[in-house]
Amino acid sequence: MTKSIFYHAGCSVCLRAEQDILSFIPENQIEIIHLGEDKAKIKNAEVAGVQSVPALVLSNGNVLHINFGASLEDVK
Amino acid sequence: MTKSIFYHAGCSVCLRAEQDILSFIPENQIEIIHLGEDKAKIKNAEVAGVQSVPALVLSNGNVLHINFGASLEDVK
Repeated sequence: MTKSIFYHAGCSVCLRAEQDILSFIPENQIEIIHLGEDKAKIKNAEVAGVQSVPALVLSNGNVLHINFGASLEDVK
Repeated sequence: MTKSIFYHAGCSVCLRAEQDILSFIPENQIEIIHLGEDKAKIKNAEVAGVQSVPALVLSNGNVLHINFGASLEDVK
């Protein structure tokens, strides 16, 4: 099974969401990507349909935008 | 342990999010409330901090607004 990917940018909204997500998705089933530190991955996030962070891209391809920390444009 | 509560209003965004949420939270750990059909619960949702649906209120009290279906004002 493909892992879910949690994209964030280190903002406080992101970090709180990360903790909440990790309370119901086991850490070995999720990949966490900090787009602020790993800007090369922004393209992947965009292709997956991510418009803002924090966002969770599920293994079925669906994107859950969770609360609102920053738009992907701002992260760039 | 208190259950998480998933509030929605029957919109397509809500229903898709519900399926995704149920893919990682077991059904016996979550209560699903349709605010369109159960308007008396809108007040509870507001008090919990829900501003739009779909939203997931976690057992720790944190609110995750997931994508955006409708504002609570529209549901009223």
